Amino acid sequence: MRVLGIDPGLTRCGVGVVEGMPGRQGKLIGYTVVRSDPDEDISQRLLHLDHSLAELVEAYRPESVAVERVFAQHNAQSVMGTAQASGIAILAGARAGLPVQTYTPSEVKAAVTGSGTADKAQVTAMVTRLLKLAAPPKPADAADAIAIAICHIWRGGTRARIEAAARRSLR
Amino acid sequence: MRVLGIDPGLTRCGVGVVEGMPGRQGKLIGYTVVRSDPDEDISQRLLHLDHSLAELVEAYRPESVAVERVFAQHNAQSVMGTAQASGIAILAGARAGLPVQTYTPSEVKAAVTGSGTADKAQVTAMVTRLLKLAAPPKPADAADAIAIAICHIWRGGTRARIEAAARRSLR
Repeated sequence: MRVLGIDPGLTRCGVGVVEGMPGRQGKLIGYTVVRSDPDEDISQRLLHLDHSLAELVEAYRPESVAVERVFAQHNAQSVMGTAQASGIAILAGARAGLPVQTYTPSEVKAAVTGSGTADKAQVTAMVTRLLKLAAPPKPADAADAIAIAICHIWRGGTRARIEAAARRSLR
Repeated sequence: MRVLGIDPGLTRCGVGVVEGMPGRQGKLIGYTVVRSDPDEDISQRLLHLDHSLAELVEAYRPESVAVERVFAQHNAQSVMGTAQASGIAILAGARAGLPVQTYTPSEVKAAVTGSGTADKAQVTAMVTRLLKLAAPPKPADAADAIAIAICHIWRGGTRARIEAAARRSLR
């Protein structure tokens, strides 16, 4: 399956596309970072992100979208922008009719490094190794997005199915 | 000018449309609350909000959109959903090519009640009085959205113009 991973952000939003199957070597299809100028109006920044993600979904034609979940731990001001960007990211998948799954940062780190507390350098190193890349993805912001896509592939989209079943059984 | 005010939320998103000019009596054009089921998938909830707001913008044809700003003070989990909804709300205006302005809760309260710390009941009472409504808007969630639209009209969109000028002069 082909997954488009998104590490949401307003100034820098990482996007990585990986093709693979659980337990098999994955293949990096492409990656990029969508940027917007902090001096721009928030509405123009969100619009730019929306357009860019729609174009990327259209260009890469993924079967599903995986987005990193945002937490309100620290730096409250910037986290609001990140949360708004994550709303746009989730919407980009939903509007294309694709299943969208979110993962916590620890889930993503654990999936690629085996440890939920791994640092950025470890994640980049493992992404490079797992996909047998000649060099680490640059800019580094994209490595997280690629890791999110890998995380989704390795979990085989199972969690989305389990959660959907759980929701149905509660009705 | 006709303003569509949005009080962003995932479970309940208030929308109020007011026509008026600074210092003149405003006229309530319409209001509603867009709801989504907390048991639904986040992607389907954001998609529903996006569709509903696009329809409302299309139906009411406002000249600008005003959105209440979200802060990460308390209840971190629910505030993330509210922030995502606010991203969708701002995008709805931007996608329709409309100017979008955000206001803090205190700015909205101060604009309609004279006090930045007014409670919900006071805001509802003043919205009812200012627009000479026969009865308070129901559900109450909509009253905040109407207050946001009033706030934007009374400030005459000046802040947006000042900020745009400030950004230009910084370049």
